[in-house]
Amino acid sequence: MTVGIIMGSKSDWPTMKLAAEMLDRFNVPYETKVVSAHRTPHLLAEYAESAKERGIKVIIAGAGGAAHLPGMTAAYTSLPVLGVPVQSRALSGVDSLYSIVQMPKGIAVGTLAIGEAGAANAGILAAQIIGTHDENVMAQVEAFRKEQTDTVLANPNPAED
Amino acid sequence: MTVGIIMGSKSDWPTMKLAAEMLDRFNVPYETKVVSAHRTPHLLAEYAESAKERGIKVIIAGAGGAAHLPGMTAAYTSLPVLGVPVQSRALSGVDSLYSIVQMPKGIAVGTLAIGEAGAANAGILAAQIIGTHDENVMAQVEAFRKEQTDTVLANPNPAED
Amino acid sequence: MTVGIIMGSKSDWPTMKLAAEMLDRFNVPYETKVVSAHRTPHLLAEYAESAKERGIKVIIAGAGGAAHLPGMTAAYTSLPVLGVPVQSRALSGVDSLYSIVQMPKGIAVGTLAIGEAGAANAGILAAQIIGTHDENVMAQVEAFRKEQTDTVLANPNPAED
Amino acid sequence: MTVGIIMGSKSDWPTMKLAAEMLDRFNVPYETKVVSAHRTPHLLAEYAESAKERGIKVIIAGAGGAAHLPGMTAAYTSLPVLGVPVQSRALSGVDSLYSIVQMPKGIAVGTLAIGEAGAANAGILAAQIIGTHDENVMAQVEAFRKEQTDTVLANPNPAED
Amino acid sequence: MTVGIIMGSKSDWPTMKLAAEMLDRFNVPYETKVVSAHRTPHLLAEYAESAKERGIKVIIAGAGGAAHLPGMTAAYTSLPVLGVPVQSRALSGVDSLYSIVQMPKGIAVGTLAIGEAGAANAGILAAQIIGTHDENVMAQVEAFRKEQTDTVLANPNPAED
Amino acid sequence: MTVGIIMGSKSDWPTMKLAAEMLDRFNVPYETKVVSAHRTPHLLAEYAESAKERGIKVIIAGAGGAAHLPGMTAAYTSLPVLGVPVQSRALSGVDSLYSIVQMPKGIAVGTLAIGEAGAANAGILAAQIIGTHDENVMAQVEAFRKEQTDTVLANPNPAED
Amino acid sequence: MTVGIIMGSKSDWPTMKLAAEMLDRFNVPYETKVVSAHRTPHLLAEYAESAKERGIKVIIAGAGGAAHLPGMTAAYTSLPVLGVPVQSRALSGVDSLYSIVQMPKGIAVGTLAIGEAGAANAGILAAQIIGTHDENVMAQVEAFRKEQTDTVLANPNPAED
Amino acid sequence: MTVGIIMGSKSDWPTMKLAAEMLDRFNVPYETKVVSAHRTPHLLAEYAESAKERGIKVIIAGAGGAAHLPGMTAAYTSLPVLGVPVQSRALSGVDSLYSIVQMPKGIAVGTLAIGEAGAANAGILAAQIIGTHDENVMAQVEAFRKEQTDTVLANPNPAED
Repeated sequence: MTVGIIMGSKSDWPTMKLAAEMLDRFNVPYETKVVSAHRTPHLLAEYAESAKERGIKVIIAGAGGAAHLPGMTAAYTSLPVLGVPVQSRALSGVDSLYSIVQMPKGIAVGTLAIGEAGAANAGILAAQIIGTHDENVMAQVEAFRKEQTDTVLANPNPAED
Repeated sequence: MTVGIIMGSKSDWPTMKLAAEMLDRFNVPYETKVVSAHRTPHLLAEYAESAKERGIKVIIAGAGGAAHLPGMTAAYTSLPVLGVPVQSRALSGVDSLYSIVQMPKGIAVGTLAIGEAGAANAGILAAQIIGTHDENVMAQVEAFRKEQTDTVLANPNPAED
Repeated sequence: MTVGIIMGSKSDWPTMKLAAEMLDRFNVPYETKVVSAHRTPHLLAEYAESAKERGIKVIIAGAGGAAHLPGMTAAYTSLPVLGVPVQSRALSGVDSLYSIVQMPKGIAVGTLAIGEAGAANAGILAAQIIGTHDENVMAQVEAFRKEQTDTVLANPNPAED
Repeated sequence: MTVGIIMGSKSDWPTMKLAAEMLDRFNVPYETKVVSAHRTPHLLAEYAESAKERGIKVIIAGAGGAAHLPGMTAAYTSLPVLGVPVQSRALSGVDSLYSIVQMPKGIAVGTLAIGEAGAANAGILAAQIIGTHDENVMAQVEAFRKEQTDTVLANPNPAED
Repeated sequence: MTVGIIMGSKSDWPTMKLAAEMLDRFNVPYETKVVSAHRTPHLLAEYAESAKERGIKVIIAGAGGAAHLPGMTAAYTSLPVLGVPVQSRALSGVDSLYSIVQMPKGIAVGTLAIGEAGAANAGILAAQIIGTHDENVMAQVEAFRKEQTDTVLANPNPAED
Repeated sequence: MTVGIIMGSKSDWPTMKLAAEMLDRFNVPYETKVVSAHRTPHLLAEYAESAKERGIKVIIAGAGGAAHLPGMTAAYTSLPVLGVPVQSRALSGVDSLYSIVQMPKGIAVGTLAIGEAGAANAGILAAQIIGTHDENVMAQVEAFRKEQTDTVLANPNPAED
Repeated sequence: MTVGIIMGSKSDWPTMKLAAEMLDRFNVPYETKVVSAHRTPHLLAEYAESAKERGIKVIIAGAGGAAHLPGMTAAYTSLPVLGVPVQSRALSGVDSLYSIVQMPKGIAVGTLAIGEAGAANAGILAAQIIGTHDENVMAQVEAFRKEQTDTVLANPNPAED
Repeated sequence: MTVGIIMGSKSDWPTMKLAAEMLDRFNVPYETKVVSAHRTPHLLAEYAESAKERGIKVIIAGAGGAAHLPGMTAAYTSLPVLGVPVQSRALSGVDSLYSIVQMPKGIAVGTLAIGEAGAANAGILAAQIIGTHDENVMAQVEAFRKEQTDTVLANPNPAED
């Protein structure tokens, strides 16, 4: 496994699966797991501390509300951690975003957009990170990028289906 | 020690000392310690997990920004945890507040106001909690409450020093 | 009765009943009552001032909008008061949250998350407070905590029902 | 006394005195008093309930943070209550504003702007309310209004002192 | 007519009719009219400037978004103006609220809550203002207030229909 | 073509078509095109740089989220650029608004309201700009303005369909 | 005069003068005037209604707080109106921004950034609008644009003075 | 050069130099350059498109306000891009944050905290990314991480200098 995708709750899966789908597209192997910072803090410590040895290169962590999962994962590993703020009920994910992005100096989380776009982009950014040393993955990212550019160029008329 | 006051950084002390001062006033014994969720996650786990055995009844945790300390403390202990959002530079503590108060169902943090008022009130609320079973502490809380009421009543003129 | 659960309006019950359900689970006796800070201020004063004598140890107060109920309850009693910001229509509960959490120095309200998660957590925190001096209640909180940890551990696959 | 100006703390006076200065200008008699919703709730009840009998026509209440004073005053009297959100430290008065303006259906507070402009305008609006039945006061409000219009008209050049 | 209820658009009526219903209840005569600050500025000037002569005592103005109607009405009359922020689509009425409440020093608008609660309360506050010199109206406000208090007292059980 | 209407995605068309409909009404010729700042940056550069030569006088650009299209268009042309913040899912268009309006000193974007009202107004403002030198277009804008004024004046009763 | 620069108060001049300085640079003649929507509504109507006849092509209006000046100017003229949100004390200009940009469908204000950058850019955008039909002005805008590009290119080292 | 640090203006350097200082510490070679999305869009395209060939592995981009630099850089390269929201004057960096983090699906920017903490963390995260394939850099990140942990552990007393 090259990428670990974790999330605080099963209810985050409809969002986080977009990260998995992106990695599928780039043929980057990944694992997915529910790991809750608040309900399973020991599992989180164990998961994050063992990730590097298990061959994981990048961890994607998604959570909502007082979203502590990405930041605590970063506290337990030196691997790059990408955080996805899951859209919350009352505050629409502003709470999730602030809880993930406003990390103190010394422990970093690369934060993506709130919700599905952020999850998909976490998959892309993880592939880009792996692609810095794996030309095959980078080539697939570039092919995807070219394809989405071509899709726009081929459909310039906004009023047409 | 009856109350543990922890904070993510020494820079939180000017805020958090107001909690200590309140507990001094109520003669509630306490300990203070810098415990960083992000820089010392193992210390945090150890501190929170051993607190009950060491006789701690309530933990007050203060942090700023992506403030994970109160929520992660609550994840590691069944003692009541009170959270103080320390005022942050860019977002004035809204980030701290959301990161502390928006805990998911299942793990609770009793959150106080942003900054010094919140820290002082965390000391008061800790004493009130202890006071539910210690009439002496409750009496001191009530004396403090009466005193602040009397101060207002004795100085009704807003324009007078 | 050990815990009083009050709310500003019957319309808050769908949220606040989650506090009651948690206390049911921990076998903590409680009472529920509609008490409006604005429409029944005298009832509020009377309720809060008599609570301690009636054996109440903790008051949980839920309200929305300009949510004055938790803070005014705290003004009338030395018992610990926990506040639940009920999600409001226009401002999604940010108004409720600020009105409850931003108490001035001297009168404390332990504030939980906006909406149902906050109500459930108010029930848990009330039990934790009682548990500081009642090992039986604490044991039940710990059992609940262990159960929710076990549920996550037993269902690690996010894509599985 | 025709207008009562109350505030939660002496620290609100530098803001609230602008209401008093406006009433001075319109020769509307007023009284000023520190009345804290949280520290002196009984005084607040007594003040608000007796205001009408004492000849008060309008109450101006200023407070900051979880600003309960205006709303609780309105709960205890049928007189019109005007609320002034005092600028708070961390949240710049957004907390004060939401706590005052977002009153539930049934109890009204006429809310003015955050800070000094709001306090001055509370004085003006109180005079306008009195002016609905006191032509002398209305004439003075109109003279003030004309004067400020004339001041703008007489100084159209923004770059000139 | 004693009260003028104006609004920027017919689409504001579902909100603003709650003001009318309150005045109906208190037997306060009123008129309702669509007056747009932006589409009919001359009508607005004429309406506001003639209101006092026509016997209007209080104007209630509701608008959404960049809600200029209440403030511009206040600019053209010395009568008390109450503003109702109508809930907007994108910003939920925060834009309406700020546009109405943040008036500069010198021209006052008494602002109510966002949406229906605010509209109803504008009707109540208008009646309270009239009631300062009309004991009959004040008596009806007080009867309404007593009734809503009694309704809460008679239905203390939140879980009961 | 006199006006270019571009947008970041086909999904912006239901919003942006209101700009087109306004220009239709004023008989101002326009073109519409999907141009994505992020997916087709070269197309954007080419589109914006060639616009003036192709006879375009004003460019209307709509985008949502981290809405870079209006600002980058302005970076590539000296034509006036009008920006429409499309309502976003999580943040309701506040992100779109800030990303468009908060341009640094030196490169200007004239920003309209979030969503459909903003798109329609972008069409109007574009016509007003063209109308500064085309009396025919200005006459049509004025006719439209008169018509909407007349519609309000003819339907003053808010409760009537 | 080609451009009218108006503002609600002399205190807006330190911000708004940046618009004037930009127009000076482009040799676009302009006039400046204090016109208050709230204190001098008749002057505003007269100013805006006569602007076109007096040869004004674009109006720049700056205001803070409940900033009604730009929107009301637009209500009285068919000329393009550009709005500058002046930074306010309590809400940092968010109130000004929302009050200016969130105009209803039918009356447009092209809104610039909060504060000095916005004022300067209003000057630039006004020149760009004039430049759509005045090649000399457009040439000067383009020279300014080129100059600021060259300044960046000539000073690529961020650490150097 | 392994890392490119770019920023929209020289005024961003006091923030962005913290990224450079972190990379110095980890002995990761980097270059720094002022590249403005709005004033030098062609330079940006050229910089981003040539970065990979020049051996750059990660780009760190900092900008404030309508911060388009990180997102446009990402639009022009398949290298991982890290974005730093520089604290802005009026909106304290919330505008910068939203403009950087809310990227649409398809183009990713890993966003760090607002201001200096975010810049330092961008340096750390860049090193972590490089460290996924360079054990020497990873060892230095881990040494830094251990050192900051040890510093907290060695100074547990918050009240001591």
